[in-house]
Amino acid sequence: MESRSRESKKGTNVVWHNHKVTKAQRSALKKQRPCILWFTGLSGSGKSTIANAVEGRLYEMGRHTYLLDGDNIRHGLNRELGFSDEDRVENIRRIGEVSKLFVDSGTIVLSAFISPFKSDRMKVRELVEDGEFIEIFVDVPLEVCEARDPKGLYKKARRGEIGDFTGISSPYEPPENPEIRLPAHEQSIEESVEQIVDYLRERGYLDGK
Amino acid sequence: MESRSRESKKGTNVVWHNHKVTKAQRSALKKQRPCILWFTGLSGSGKSTIANAVEGRLYEMGRHTYLLDGDNIRHGLNRELGFSDEDRVENIRRIGEVSKLFVDSGTIVLSAFISPFKSDRMKVRELVEDGEFIEIFVDVPLEVCEARDPKGLYKKARRGEIGDFTGISSPYEPPENPEIRLPAHEQSIEESVEQIVDYLRERGYLDGK
Repeated sequence: MESRSRESKKGTNVVWHNHKVTKAQRSALKKQRPCILWFTGLSGSGKSTIANAVEGRLYEMGRHTYLLDGDNIRHGLNRELGFSDEDRVENIRRIGEVSKLFVDSGTIVLSAFISPFKSDRMKVRELVEDGEFIEIFVDVPLEVCEARDPKGLYKKARRGEIGDFTGISSPYEPPENPEIRLPAHEQSIEESVEQIVDYLRERGYLDGK
Repeated sequence: MESRSRESKKGTNVVWHNHKVTKAQRSALKKQRPCILWFTGLSGSGKSTIANAVEGRLYEMGRHTYLLDGDNIRHGLNRELGFSDEDRVENIRRIGEVSKLFVDSGTIVLSAFISPFKSDRMKVRELVEDGEFIEIFVDVPLEVCEARDPKGLYKKARRGEIGDFTGISSPYEPPENPEIRLPAHEQSIEESVEQIVDYLRERGYLDGK
């Protein structure tokens, strides 16, 4: 058996030796322009429901997506983080970094977190290239969200059983110039989905198929 | 303008309301069985070079991949972590969690980190389903890695300028039963790539195309 050094065989391996598959190549393979659909809004505004519906719609269209939400982040990557201001900042920072990796992989990533602080959302925007961060403000008033209270969290927060609850005991800073604003209490989920898919279609994110 | 509640329009939205796109659906769209190719080995053993070559080869085959390495992790998600034992554990934990998310997205994810501790690698294995964690031991002896010393790190470590350097001042715990063992100093990069692609092909990871 001949022992061959890396160098002696370089000639047979010209294509990928020291070459990396690029974001452009991964996106081309997926025939789409990757981006982050960053949903922000109060608890109970419908972020997660709408994001799931958008992912479902894009899947039907043969698009490559991934959805980050409390289910797969809070029990995994960010399991040790709580809800203090410091931990909320770190929570969003990590979600931003993971979103960036998915964009780099060519994926349309959907992120559904309250993400109440403007500065945190801005930092995620700055992590990626122009046009890759699409801020979607699920703009449902506090009183509507509180009346819905799907998980009973507002009730608990009002009783003082949850500290730092966004909208009650912790601020929500609404986006000033979101790419998309969804008055989700005044329209159907399907209309919200259409609004987002139209945005993507019109701006060429879905080109390539 | 009519104001419509979420409920009143539910009928038009039966498919994706409260449904989630599943890992099985995302994998089917990508026509592959997702997994983690977890490269482990000493600094200078060739993990990153081989992982890049494997990704290149899979890309040529139309496969959906993503490579996690120092470049995209240490400067992003894990930027605040150092090289203490505690930080190394957290480094690998986060990489494992991110790898799991990529597997959930249907992607074949390649991870190229020294990952010296058996227990850390075991934890990543346990995060995912049976057969989804493929441990690849880049089995190059310390003396070969040190002679190569592509980044001059061994020299610095020997001079005491880097603390906790794997193989010198910090242990490397080799895998006992890796799915794939690459004697990368005795074979070409291309042969290592073939070994891995054959493994994937024979076990059905690349079925569906």
